[in-house]
Amino acid sequence: MTRWRLTVEFDGGPFMGWQRQDHGPSVQEALEQAIGRMTGETVAVHAAGRTDAGVHALAMTAHVDIDRDVTPHRLREGINALVRPDPVAVTAVEPVADDWHARFSCVGRRYLYRILNRRAPPALDAGRVWHIAQTVDSDAMAESATHLVGIHDFTTFRSVHCQSDSPVKTLDSLRVEQVGEEIHVRAAARSFLHHQVRSMVGCLALVGRGQWKPADVKAALEARDRAALGFNAPPHGLYFVEAIYP
Amino acid sequence: MTRWRLTVEFDGGPFMGWQRQDHGPSVQEALEQAIGRMTGETVAVHAAGRTDAGVHALAMTAHVDIDRDVTPHRLREGINALVRPDPVAVTAVEPVADDWHARFSCVGRRYLYRILNRRAPPALDAGRVWHIAQTVDSDAMAESATHLVGIHDFTTFRSVHCQSDSPVKTLDSLRVEQVGEEIHVRAAARSFLHHQVRSMVGCLALVGRGQWKPADVKAALEARDRAALGFNAPPHGLYFVEAIYP
Repeated sequence: MTRWRLTVEFDGGPFMGWQRQDHGPSVQEALEQAIGRMTGETVAVHAAGRTDAGVHALAMTAHVDIDRDVTPHRLREGINALVRPDPVAVTAVEPVADDWHARFSCVGRRYLYRILNRRAPPALDAGRVWHIAQTVDSDAMAESATHLVGIHDFTTFRSVHCQSDSPVKTLDSLRVEQVGEEIHVRAAARSFLHHQVRSMVGCLALVGRGQWKPADVKAALEARDRAALGFNAPPHGLYFVEAIYP
Repeated sequence: MTRWRLTVEFDGGPFMGWQRQDHGPSVQEALEQAIGRMTGETVAVHAAGRTDAGVHALAMTAHVDIDRDVTPHRLREGINALVRPDPVAVTAVEPVADDWHARFSCVGRRYLYRILNRRAPPALDAGRVWHIAQTVDSDAMAESATHLVGIHDFTTFRSVHCQSDSPVKTLDSLRVEQVGEEIHVRAAARSFLHHQVRSMVGCLALVGRGQWKPADVKAALEARDRAALGFNAPPHGLYFVEAIYP
């Protein structure tokens, strides 16, 4: 048996999310079926993080145990050939120690959220950005973001379905940058609560559109109450960028 | 009557090209129908350049004459609402002089060609890049490109269907740049022959993959013979970037 580390890019559009679901396609199932067809084995693919329906990944990290002897080259090429036409690509494979775990060994996760801020809807990036037609003040968003960085009880930014033991997390960074017509929000932490990034971006966007003041973000955080916000940015602007390991 | 300048972004994937065709959808027809529904007028939309089937535009420039009084804001919003679900977006509108012409007033055109150079196929950018799995030497491509810049008879890089009076064109620049996993080829000229950019990129890619030497590009150009090459890079990696006016 060899444990393989996989780096996976995917378009989240057609999937119910990373995790296998009874009611629709998932990235996990697409990969498990491709690897199963290639090896004849029933495999389980574990990822650094579970993404929501519609969320994309530039480089999700996952692992899978395979009994059959296979070279890294053939494994990557085989999965990519068999996973088609699903929009999933394995960009790198590497053998790892048997006790290495994509989720439990992970010490950092990075996300990118893309907002397209212009009047016209996206033609080339439909399904890849959150389109906000009203003027957004990215400086006000950046100022608000500073209130969220650090160790906090993020209950306000947590899904009611979140299974984390504690709502207390350390947000290492939350940066807002204007990039041409887009506003990019980059978040980094050891781990995130369910919906935390989309919820934080939704909150920053309220500030960017002038509906909230930056101080309202601080008040919402301190309220430790989901009812103080309850608004998520849509999934299709969100990208899992990178999982970090020691 | 007001002549309007339009800046248009489109995903070329579902279209037979810019120009109205009997046998399938075109960007021109999509815009003309949207404007026609909005104004009740039968309009003709003229573009700076005709793009092939599958070729995208970041910012094509076009113009259209409209009798009805309309504000720039309402014109742009109206077209964008009515052109859906076609992947076309008007990003800017501006009234221009009656003798201003998107094609004949244009003094420069810029294209970008995106090659994804990695083993794994694109998951997020499928239909947006030319995927080349073999290793490509972008330095050799850049060296070859210098042979094509300047005033030349570009017969080798011209479609047999090209309607240009002369095969002699001035290529102002042809730059090759490695951008992460992508190789970007940027071309600028007053005007291009039919298939010239895709043909030049196809030729550079032969060098990048080691099938040709940079000197072979010079020889192919000097042959002034379509049979010396006859290979076009696929359309879906090509973007019309910008039309330039005095």
